[in-house]
Amino acid sequence: MPTQTPALVAESAGAAFIPRLIERRDLREDDVAIEIAFAGICHSDIHQVREEWGSAIFPMVPGHEIAGVVAAVGSAVTTLKVGDRVGVGCMVDSCGECEFCKDGFEQHCTRGAVMTYNGVGYDGDPTLGGYARSVVVSERFACPIPDGIGLDEAAPLLCAGITTYSPLRRWGVGPGSRVAVVGMGGLGHMGVKLAVAMGAQVSVLSRSDAKAADSLALGAVEHVATSDAAAMKERRSYFDLVLNTVSADLDIESYLGLVKPRGVVANVGLPSEPYRVRPGRLIGTSKVIAGSNIGGIPETREMLAFCAEHGIGAQIETITADEVTEAYDKVVAGDVRYRYVIDVSTISAAQD
Amino acid sequence: MPTQTPALVAESAGAAFIPRLIERRDLREDDVAIEIAFAGICHSDIHQVREEWGSAIFPMVPGHEIAGVVAAVGSAVTTLKVGDRVGVGCMVDSCGECEFCKDGFEQHCTRGAVMTYNGVGYDGDPTLGGYARSVVVSERFACPIPDGIGLDEAAPLLCAGITTYSPLRRWGVGPGSRVAVVGMGGLGHMGVKLAVAMGAQVSVLSRSDAKAADSLALGAVEHVATSDAAAMKERRSYFDLVLNTVSADLDIESYLGLVKPRGVVANVGLPSEPYRVRPGRLIGTSKVIAGSNIGGIPETREMLAFCAEHGIGAQIETITADEVTEAYDKVVAGDVRYRYVIDVSTISAAQD
Repeated sequence: MPTQTPALVAESAGAAFIPRLIERRDLREDDVAIEIAFAGICHSDIHQVREEWGSAIFPMVPGHEIAGVVAAVGSAVTTLKVGDRVGVGCMVDSCGECEFCKDGFEQHCTRGAVMTYNGVGYDGDPTLGGYARSVVVSERFACPIPDGIGLDEAAPLLCAGITTYSPLRRWGVGPGSRVAVVGMGGLGHMGVKLAVAMGAQVSVLSRSDAKAADSLALGAVEHVATSDAAAMKERRSYFDLVLNTVSADLDIESYLGLVKPRGVVANVGLPSEPYRVRPGRLIGTSKVIAGSNIGGIPETREMLAFCAEHGIGAQIETITADEVTEAYDKVVAGDVRYRYVIDVSTISAAQD
Repeated sequence: MPTQTPALVAESAGAAFIPRLIERRDLREDDVAIEIAFAGICHSDIHQVREEWGSAIFPMVPGHEIAGVVAAVGSAVTTLKVGDRVGVGCMVDSCGECEFCKDGFEQHCTRGAVMTYNGVGYDGDPTLGGYARSVVVSERFACPIPDGIGLDEAAPLLCAGITTYSPLRRWGVGPGSRVAVVGMGGLGHMGVKLAVAMGAQVSVLSRSDAKAADSLALGAVEHVATSDAAAMKERRSYFDLVLNTVSADLDIESYLGLVKPRGVVANVGLPSEPYRVRPGRLIGTSKVIAGSNIGGIPETREMLAFCAEHGIGAQIETITADEVTEAYDKVVAGDVRYRYVIDVSTISAAQD
């Protein structure tokens, strides 16, 4: 007998969210039920509920930045107990057996990882996300949130945090590294916080100076407006890593010019037009253009521990269930500093 | 009083080579004079002497795949002695003080490394390369060739060898790696030999099956004609690394499709048209497109030791001085298996 829980549901593409009851599956032996406290709003939620990334599954409950407390555990659960603080990110299942799952890169699972919402589980059922009072997932995909990080500021770590943490680690950022974070939004502000905590000298590259004070407050050594051609030119061959969090179509070759020989431009924002790079700009200086897609579960756990150690959470604005539709418009307008988080206790569903 | 030595000289762009005497500088305290035995013909020699890569310096003596024996040493030379077997590659000087020189990436020297020919030394004098009976270089740039590798088959290691060795090492090729080498020419055949010696499972991707027997003889597990669409499709998401040695304009995105998630397409061939890659093809699977420009001096020394340990030399056709012009046409036509090496003892210059 599945459990019912209040959630924010979009019945069709672009429809307003309606609070109503949805069903969560009975606990399997390796499942935990999580009482959700907060769910972050990621720009990808908006793309998917508006079907801007292609055909989606409705009714939809978005939300893959989930923080809460374990409310029940299945009979075979060994790593979590009732009362534990946990987060769930973009994935809720993977095959567990392929080379990628074994290496901790579940996002690249050969069978296909099951996404937290707008996905289909291996049981054939559509998945429903975190804009809800509770969720049921395998313990493998529930990552402990250490004490010392509030559940509200922890929620966005499960996507924005790991998405920026993973490329910073892959490309060896540490003390003395020079890192440019392109874009000062939900992803970018986490990239700044994490790179600073790793010991890097961080520059924010942003369209304008509007967020300059925030950049410095987060620990960046400078905030450069990308419209300032002279300032950009001064930083040619300057950085070890450019972390590009922007989804707009940038001239990637000009950002490649900002990194030193052997430097890396790592992209996590997803623009629509192809990158266009002259081979000589890559080969002569042994440079690298990389993509990065969220991060695996072991690395997510590592990231949460790192954030606790360094006192890092997302910078958030907490909203109630009835503010979500307005918040979506603000996210699209870039009018959020720097992540909306829904207090899901405010979701109260009409009875079916 | 500079020393004179016979060399093959091109007086102007595209001119036939004329054997005549050129001057080598007197030994500086850190210099060695090398009696050259063999000089490889790299396709880039042809591009430069024909001014296909832009304005060049004439008269020109090409040659940056140099193998010989130390004939004299400067007063402060400590690492080499007369009689030592040494090689010289693409570079003959660098500042030695910048972060790249200190890290062993002299090819990315901030001051600009001095190239072996068609360059200008820090003293202002044009450099003249290895199609000559002798050369004078700083001991830093003369790399020991261990016994057990013939000087003839060693010469091409100084460019084709290090150019393929460096990206194989950077991207972690080892036992169990699946590596595709695209292009079976001077660079490609070295890539196959080196990757096989590193323990990788190597596939050659070539336009046709013409060199299939050679690929297998060098240790590749298979030779795939890139015109075979079905075979290419079967190898989607298959390789850890694609090493692209081809200078033709390939659809780089289709080669990106051949690597697994987190895989790398490393490019050493220099095509003329921009790469064009849709961001999703890079980001969704956390893939990497990299360039690689020769290799530094410490890595060149390491590569020569590795080749000696594994009994690796280039597969060569040895020619005399009067066969160089014809050899150039054959290189352009791809009609060499797999590297021409000039026996420089056949260069006898008319007296000035």
